[in-house]
Amino acid sequence: MENIEFKFDEQGLLPAIVQDARTGEVLMLAYMNEESLQKTIDTKTTWFYSRSRKELWNKGATSGNYQYVKNMSYDCDEDTVLLQVEQVGAACHTGARSCFYRDIDLNDDSLDYRREIIHDVYQSILNRKE
Amino acid sequence: MENIEFKFDEQGLLPAIVQDARTGEVLMLAYMNEESLQKTIDTKTTWFYSRSRKELWNKGATSGNYQYVKNMSYDCDEDTVLLQVEQVGAACHTGARSCFYRDIDLNDDSLDYRREIIHDVYQSILNRKE
Repeated sequence: MENIEFKFDEQGLLPAIVQDARTGEVLMLAYMNEESLQKTIDTKTTWFYSRSRKELWNKGATSGNYQYVKNMSYDCDEDTVLLQVEQVGAACHTGARSCFYRDIDLNDDSLDYRREIIHDVYQSILNRKE
Repeated sequence: MENIEFKFDEQGLLPAIVQDARTGEVLMLAYMNEESLQKTIDTKTTWFYSRSRKELWNKGATSGNYQYVKNMSYDCDEDTVLLQVEQVGAACHTGARSCFYRDIDLNDDSLDYRREIIHDVYQSILNRKE
Protein backbone atom coordinates (compact mmCIF):
# COMPACT_ATOMS: atom_id res chain seq x y z
CA MET A 1 0.00 0.00 0.00
CA GLU A 2 2.49 2.62 -1.15
CA ASN A 3 3.70 4.60 1.83
CA ILE A 4 0.43 5.74 3.33
CA GLU A 5 0.62 5.93 7.12
CA PHE A 6 -2.91 4.80 7.90
CA LYS A 7 -4.03 5.63 11.41
CA PHE A 8 -5.84 2.51 12.53
CA ASP A 9 -7.86 2.81 15.76
CA GLU A 10 -7.16 0.91 19.01
CA GLN A 11 -8.75 -2.18 17.48
CA GLY A 12 -6.60 -1.87 14.36
CA LEU A 13 -9.53 -0.72 12.21
CA LEU A 14 -10.48 2.05 9.80
CA PRO A 15 -14.04 2.94 8.75
CA ALA A 16 -14.54 2.31 5.04
CA ILE A 17 -17.33 4.17 3.20
CA VAL A 18 -18.68 2.34 0.16
CA GLN A 19 -20.27 4.43 -2.57
CA ASP A 20 -21.86 3.46 -5.90
CA ALA A 21 -19.28 4.50 -8.54
CA ARG A 22 -21.99 5.36 -11.05
CA THR A 23 -24.69 7.14 -9.02
CA GLY A 24 -22.72 8.39 -5.99
CA GLU A 25 -25.21 6.73 -3.64
CA VAL A 26 -23.61 5.83 -0.30
CA LEU A 27 -24.26 2.12 0.11
CA MET A 28 -22.75 1.14 3.45
CA LEU A 29 -20.03 1.69 6.02
CA ALA A 30 -17.92 -1.19 7.31
CA TYR A 31 -14.49 -1.59 8.91
CA MET A 32 -11.16 -2.69 7.47
CA ASN A 33 -8.00 -3.81 9.19
CA GLU A 34 -4.66 -3.75 7.40
CA GLU A 35 -5.10 -7.26 5.99
CA SER A 36 -8.58 -6.60 4.57
CA LEU A 37 -7.35 -3.32 3.07
CA GLN A 38 -4.54 -5.19 1.29
CA LYS A 39 -6.90 -7.98 0.13
CA THR A 40 -9.28 -5.32 -1.23
CA ILE A 41 -6.45 -3.77 -3.27
CA ASP A 42 -5.20 -7.19 -4.43
CA THR A 43 -8.59 -8.64 -5.44
CA LYS A 44 -10.40 -5.38 -6.44
CA THR A 45 -13.39 -6.65 -4.42
CA THR A 46 -14.20 -5.41 -0.92
CA TRP A 47 -12.91 -7.23 2.15
CA PHE A 48 -13.93 -6.09 5.63
CA TYR A 49 -13.27 -7.06 9.22
CA SER A 50 -16.38 -8.15 11.11
CA ARG A 51 -16.25 -6.73 14.63
CA SER A 52 -18.92 -9.17 15.86
CA ARG A 53 -17.54 -12.33 14.23
CA LYS A 54 -13.93 -11.19 14.58
CA GLU A 55 -12.98 -12.37 11.11
CA LEU A 56 -12.41 -11.11 7.59
CA TRP A 57 -15.23 -11.30 5.09
CA ASN A 58 -15.36 -10.81 1.36
CA LYS A 59 -18.57 -8.93 0.58
CA GLY A 60 -20.57 -11.02 -1.91
CA ALA A 61 -18.81 -14.33 -1.21
CA THR A 62 -22.02 -15.87 0.15
CA SER A 63 -24.71 -13.61 -1.39
CA GLY A 64 -23.10 -13.07 -4.79
CA ASN A 65 -23.49 -9.32 -4.22
CA TYR A 66 -19.85 -8.46 -4.85
CA GLN A 67 -18.53 -4.94 -4.87
CA TYR A 68 -16.01 -4.39 -7.67
CA VAL A 69 -13.69 -1.59 -6.64
CA LYS A 70 -13.25 1.15 -9.24
CA ASN A 71 -11.55 3.75 -7.11
CA MET A 72 -10.19 4.08 -3.58
CA SER A 73 -9.17 7.20 -1.70
CA TYR A 74 -8.28 8.20 1.86
CA ASP A 75 -8.91 11.30 3.90
CA CYS A 76 -6.72 14.12 5.21
CA ASP A 77 -6.30 12.38 8.62
CA GLU A 78 -5.44 9.01 7.02
CA ASP A 79 -8.04 7.36 9.25
CA THR A 80 -10.92 6.73 6.81
CA VAL A 81 -11.10 5.19 3.35
CA LEU A 82 -13.66 5.75 0.60
CA LEU A 83 -14.37 3.16 -2.06
CA GLN A 84 -16.26 3.70 -5.30
CA VAL A 85 -17.63 0.36 -6.42
CA GLU A 86 -19.75 -1.38 -8.98
CA GLN A 87 -22.36 -3.02 -6.73
CA VAL A 88 -23.89 -6.32 -7.83
CA GLY A 89 -27.47 -6.51 -6.48
CA ALA A 90 -28.13 -5.11 -3.02
CA ALA A 91 -25.47 -3.77 -0.65
CA CYS A 92 -27.61 -4.26 2.46
CA HIS A 93 -28.30 -7.62 4.09
CA THR A 94 -31.97 -6.54 4.32
CA GLY A 95 -32.18 -6.59 0.53
CA ALA A 96 -32.19 -2.80 0.25
CA ARG A 97 -29.86 -1.32 -2.35
CA SER A 98 -28.25 0.87 0.33
CA CYS A 99 -28.01 0.33 4.10
CA PHE A 100 -29.16 3.96 4.53
CA TYR A 101 -32.78 3.33 3.61
CA ARG A 102 -34.36 5.15 6.57
CA ASP A 103 -34.49 8.90 7.05
CA ILE A 104 -34.19 10.83 10.29
CA ASP A 105 -37.02 13.33 10.62
CA LEU A 106 -35.47 16.80 10.52
CA ASN A 107 -38.75 18.38 11.52
CA ASP A 108 -38.89 16.94 15.00
CA ASP A 109 -39.07 20.41 16.53
CA SER A 110 -42.17 21.22 14.48
CA LEU A 111 -43.73 18.13 16.06
CA ASP A 112 -42.71 19.38 19.50
CA TYR A 113 -44.19 22.72 18.56
CA ARG A 114 -47.49 21.15 17.59
CA ARG A 115 -47.43 19.15 20.82
CA GLU A 116 -46.96 22.42 22.73
CA ILE A 117 -49.97 23.97 21.02
CA ILE A 118 -52.13 20.97 21.83
CA HIS A 119 -50.92 21.11 25.44
CA ASP A 120 -51.74 24.85 25.63
CA VAL A 121 -55.22 24.36 24.15
CA TYR A 122 -55.83 21.48 26.56
CA GLN A 123 -54.72 23.62 29.53
CA SER A 124 -57.01 26.45 28.41
CA ILE A 125 -59.96 24.06 28.32
CA LEU A 126 -59.10 22.74 31.79
CA ASN A 127 -58.75 26.30 33.15
CA ARG A 128 -62.14 27.32 31.76
CA LYS A 129 -63.75 24.29 33.33
CA GLU A 130 -62.54 25.33 36.79
CA MET B 1 -34.93 11.94 17.72
CA GLU B 2 -38.06 9.89 17.24
CA ASN B 3 -37.56 6.42 18.64
CA ILE B 4 -34.40 5.36 16.85
CA GLU B 5 -32.25 3.13 19.04
CA PHE B 6 -28.86 4.38 17.91
CA LYS B 7 -26.01 2.06 18.79
CA PHE B 8 -23.30 4.37 20.01
CA ASP B 9 -19.84 2.82 20.45
CA GLU B 10 -17.95 2.46 23.78
CA GLN B 11 -17.04 6.15 23.56
CA GLY B 12 -20.66 7.11 22.94
CA LEU B 13 -20.02 7.96 19.29
CA LEU B 14 -21.37 7.20 15.82
CA PRO B 15 -19.49 7.79 12.55
CA ALA B 16 -21.27 10.42 10.44
CA ILE B 17 -20.68 10.49 6.68
CA VAL B 18 -21.15 13.90 5.09
CA GLN B 19 -22.06 14.01 1.41
CA ASP B 20 -22.69 16.91 -0.95
CA ALA B 21 -26.49 16.95 -1.46
CA ARG B 22 -26.16 18.17 -5.03
CA THR B 23 -23.24 16.20 -6.49
CA GLY B 24 -23.13 13.13 -4.21
CA GLU B 25 -19.44 13.73 -3.49
CA VAL B 26 -18.42 12.34 -0.10
CA LEU B 27 -16.91 15.29 1.74
CA MET B 28 -15.78 13.97 5.12
CA LEU B 29 -16.36 11.55 7.98
CA ALA B 30 -16.57 12.76 11.56
CA TYR B 31 -18.10 11.51 14.81
CA MET B 32 -21.28 12.47 16.63
CA ASN B 33 -22.39 11.80 20.16
CA GLU B 34 -26.04 12.00 21.15
CA GLU B 35 -25.83 15.71 21.98
CA SER B 36 -24.22 16.68 18.66
CA LEU B 37 -26.76 14.55 16.78
CA GLN B 38 -29.58 16.44 18.50
CA LYS B 39 -27.92 19.82 17.89
CA THR B 40 -27.52 18.91 14.21
CA ILE B 41 -31.24 18.15 13.95
CA ASP B 42 -32.18 21.27 15.89
CA THR B 43 -29.94 23.72 14.00
CA LYS B 44 -29.85 21.99 10.56
CA THR B 45 -26.09 22.57 10.56
CA THR B 46 -23.57 19.86 11.41
CA TRP B 47 -22.27 19.41 14.95
CA PHE B 48 -19.60 16.82 15.71
CA TYR B 49 -17.69 15.53 18.70
CA SER B 50 -13.94 16.06 18.44
CA ARG B 51 -12.17 12.96 19.79
CA SER B 52 -8.87 14.86 20.16
CA ARG B 53 -10.24 18.04 21.77
CA LYS B 54 -13.01 16.16 23.59
CA GLU B 55 -15.63 18.78 22.80
CA LEU B 56 -18.48 19.53 20.46
CA TRP B 57 -17.84 21.64 17.40
CA ASN B 58 -20.16 23.26 14.92
CA LYS B 59 -18.58 22.83 11.49
CA GLY B 60 -18.14 26.29 9.96
CA ALA B 61 -18.36 28.25 13.22
CA THR B 62 -14.76 29.45 12.85
CA SER B 63 -14.17 28.99 9.08
CA GLY B 64 -17.58 30.05 7.84
CA ASN B 65 -17.72 26.77 5.91
CA TYR B 66 -21.05 25.66 7.32
CA GLN B 67 -22.82 22.51 6.22
CA TYR B 68 -26.57 23.05 5.86
CA VAL B 69 -28.29 19.72 6.38
CA LYS B 70 -30.80 18.80 3.67
CA ASN B 71 -31.33 15.15 4.55
CA MET B 72 -30.26 12.70 7.23
CA SER B 73 -30.52 8.93 7.24
CA TYR B 74 -29.23 6.01 9.29
CA ASP B 75 -28.15 2.51 8.41
CA CYS B 76 -29.59 -0.96 8.99
CA ASP B 77 -27.45 -1.46 12.14
CA GLU B 78 -28.37 1.95 13.57
CA ASP B 79 -24.68 2.65 14.13
CA THR B 80 -23.86 5.10 11.31
CA VAL B 81 -25.53 8.25 10.04
CA LEU B 82 -25.40 9.82 6.58
CA LEU B 83 -25.96 13.53 6.02
CA GLN B 84 -26.62 15.23 2.70
CA VAL B 85 -25.56 18.84 3.02
CA GLU B 86 -25.17 22.08 1.19
CA GLN B 87 -21.46 22.75 1.77
CA VAL B 88 -20.28 26.36 1.98
CA GLY B 89 -16.70 26.55 0.65
CA ALA B 90 -14.36 23.66 1.46
CA ALA B 91 -15.20 20.74 3.75
CA CYS B 92 -11.55 19.92 4.46
CA HIS B 93 -9.31 21.94 6.78
CA THR B 94 -6.61 21.70 4.06
CA GLY B 95 -8.78 23.84 1.80
CA ALA B 96 -9.74 20.88 -0.42
CA ARG B 97 -13.41 20.59 -1.27
CA SER B 98 -13.46 17.02 0.08
CA CYS B 99 -11.21 15.37 2.68
CA PHE B 100 -10.83 12.43 0.28
CA TYR B 101 -8.52 14.21 -2.16
CA ARG B 102 -5.89 11.46 -2.42
CA ASP B 103 -6.28 8.16 -4.24
CA ILE B 104 -4.91 4.78 -3.23
CA ASP B 105 -3.08 3.17 -6.16
CA LEU B 106 -5.05 0.07 -7.12
CA ASN B 107 -2.29 -1.06 -9.49
CA ASP B 108 0.36 -1.71 -6.87
CA ASP B 109 0.75 -5.31 -8.06
CA SER B 110 1.53 -4.16 -11.61
CA LEU B 111 4.35 -2.12 -10.12
CA ASP B 112 5.60 -5.23 -8.31
CA TYR B 113 5.38 -7.07 -11.60
CA ARG B 114 7.49 -4.45 -13.37
CA ARG B 115 9.99 -4.57 -10.53
CA GLU B 116 10.23 -8.35 -11.01
CA ILE B 117 10.96 -7.95 -14.73
CA ILE B 118 13.68 -5.40 -14.02
CA HIS B 119 15.16 -7.74 -11.40
CA ASP B 120 15.12 -10.66 -13.85
CA VAL B 121 16.78 -8.63 -16.61
CA TYR B 122 19.40 -7.42 -14.14
CA GLN B 123 20.12 -10.99 -13.03
CA SER B 124 20.48 -12.12 -16.64
CA ILE B 125 23.04 -9.37 -17.26
CA LEU B 126 24.98 -10.37 -14.12
CA ASN B 127 24.89 -14.05 -15.15
CA ARG B 128 26.22 -13.29 -18.63
CA LYS B 129 29.07 -11.24 -17.16
CA GLU B 130 30.27 -14.21 -15.08
